[in-house]
Amino acid sequence: MTTADNHSTLTVAEAGEIESLRRTVSRLGQGAPSQFVLVGPGDDCAVVSAPDARFVVTTDTMVEGPDFRLGWSSWFDLGWKAVASNVSDVAAMGARPTALVVALVVPGSVLVADLEAFADGLKAACDALAPGCSIVGGDLASGSQVVIAVTAHGTLEGREPVLRSGARPGDILAVGGTLGQAACGLALLFSGTDVAAAYDEWVAVQLRPMPPVGLGVEAALAGASSMLDISDGLAKDAARIGRASGATLDISSSALFGFEARLEGAAQALCLHAGDGSSAERLTRAWVLGGGEDHSLLATFPAQAVLPRGFKAIGRVVSAGDSAVLLDGSPLVESGWDSSLGR
Amino acid sequence: MTTADNHSTLTVAEAGEIESLRRTVSRLGQGAPSQFVLVGPGDDCAVVSAPDARFVVTTDTMVEGPDFRLGWSSWFDLGWKAVASNVSDVAAMGARPTALVVALVVPGSVLVADLEAFADGLKAACDALAPGCSIVGGDLASGSQVVIAVTAHGTLEGREPVLRSGARPGDILAVGGTLGQAACGLALLFSGTDVAAAYDEWVAVQLRPMPPVGLGVEAALAGASSMLDISDGLAKDAARIGRASGATLDISSSALFGFEARLEGAAQALCLHAGDGSSAERLTRAWVLGGGEDHSLLATFPAQAVLPRGFKAIGRVVSAGDSAVLLDGSPLVESGWDSSLGR
Repeated sequence: MTTADNHSTLTVAEAGEIESLRRTVSRLGQGAPSQFVLVGPGDDCAVVSAPDARFVVTTDTMVEGPDFRLGWSSWFDLGWKAVASNVSDVAAMGARPTALVVALVVPGSVLVADLEAFADGLKAACDALAPGCSIVGGDLASGSQVVIAVTAHGTLEGREPVLRSGARPGDILAVGGTLGQAACGLALLFSGTDVAAAYDEWVAVQLRPMPPVGLGVEAALAGASSMLDISDGLAKDAARIGRASGATLDISSSALFGFEARLEGAAQALCLHAGDGSSAERLTRAWVLGGGEDHSLLATFPAQAVLPRGFKAIGRVVSAGDSAVLLDGSPLVESGWDSSLGR
Repeated sequence: MTTADNHSTLTVAEAGEIESLRRTVSRLGQGAPSQFVLVGPGDDCAVVSAPDARFVVTTDTMVEGPDFRLGWSSWFDLGWKAVASNVSDVAAMGARPTALVVALVVPGSVLVADLEAFADGLKAACDALAPGCSIVGGDLASGSQVVIAVTAHGTLEGREPVLRSGARPGDILAVGGTLGQAACGLALLFSGTDVAAAYDEWVAVQLRPMPPVGLGVEAALAGASSMLDISDGLAKDAARIGRASGATLDISSSALFGFEARLEGAAQALCLHAGDGSSAERLTRAWVLGGGEDHSLLATFPAQAVLPRGFKAIGRVVSAGDSAVLLDGSPLVESGWDSSLGR
């Protein structure tokens, strides 16, 4: 038995796995039940609806250290980001997210209140990014390091999946969502300065990304020939479509100016603070070409397609050349714009 | 580039995540393609068939330390066990396993050859325990401790799921599979003696469990009113059915004699070695009532049902009393038979 008084200091080890899970799960079920959940958490399995007799599935892991720091991310943020990074993969198939399961490993010293905040973040992200999608199962285990493994499911609603391999010469290359904001946010966090507070909008994109999940279905309906979730940066992920499709993607730098301009203020402030003569222009270009974690969608569309609102054309698909991705016709060195840039 | 010569010492950190994953995934796709996989690994999501427009889903995590020791389990064993412990949850719904995704966290010092052995274990367990089921996706991340999170899916083939909550007074209580063998195997491993080598059959059940997955569908077809996967021991898991169903489960000790008798030799050898006057009879009873990890099925059937071959009646469902589970009519203290007994 615990009282309201000691609730805020109760650890997972003290509460035990079953009680910790019970409290966490109880926060997930509030609100309208999902149309996709036939049997919810609590049995050996959940039962989920798959209306067109197929489902899409993806899994993604976040590990304390390489993927997040508890000093930067709140437990709410972690729940949010775990959902966001997975439902964006569902969207990238042209599917609608339906159900998630979450495996969580935490040290016993973590507070039950932290798990509750994590669950609130999971639920808030589902409600905001993928309405109708809910958490149908989970597992809680004890370990030395926080690990969050989410598996996300979705329905294609009778459509064909949009793969990475369908880009054809002549297609339009387009981005749905933002570019470089999460990378800018990460650079601000690493700077450890007051600059971060002045540009907290970009820090928020890093900690609680807002992938344009609904655009996945819209792209499929508009006839997208290929699509993926940009998680390792535009250059690397464009090369993935190019290689899978046997084509080359030529990005127009002029189409990126808008993405870069929004980040100029933060870049200038960081350069000023660094005082090492680094160039704000170089920085914004690195973020936009190399930054992942905005979890935006990169898609190709036939030339005659009408792009859905929210997609911006940034280039063309051309016949396969030596390089899978070009910038204004010149080879773009993928590793030159690694997402570690700016860190 | 690596040569055959240094392959055996190549670490995950040296090979990188993408190359490590490529080598691992390439071992999973050998053999006949699964009828359930519409799009396999390599895109943002896999696409899996759900013939009756529903799927069951469960997730389970294994953490180095609490759940396994690398000194006892080979990487092949870990892959096998990760599959076994998850497909048994699918079976416990009366469903047939169709597809798994695997999230793996390992230190960078782990060898790529170890990952390959892990993948071989995953594949071997799918082929042996759940033919037609395959690995459709995964994620590899770096961390300080090995964590394996598997999410398993299955199809109900048009049947209703068998829940924990359907047991009714008068029903027969029955077990499909073995009891206590994995717990005996764990006790043998903990003993650190030559006794373990003499009873390696039980050690093998602990390291590479053989859950009777096919019995899940057979139980559903035979009209099972409730079912679960015994993962925390007969006493605890029977109590879960009792509580979910609002009934009491009365186990007959005489029906357990057969399970206990098989483990007597190992129990006597361990008691002799301990030399502390501990009783072999007490030990086998503790293993059979308290041992999980055989991943057998516990089910209830209407009195007139014909039990499928492989199920053994071990008791009855009676009206709810003070205790959710009885042994020969007397309350069975669940915590008295915790799975930590014998460790």
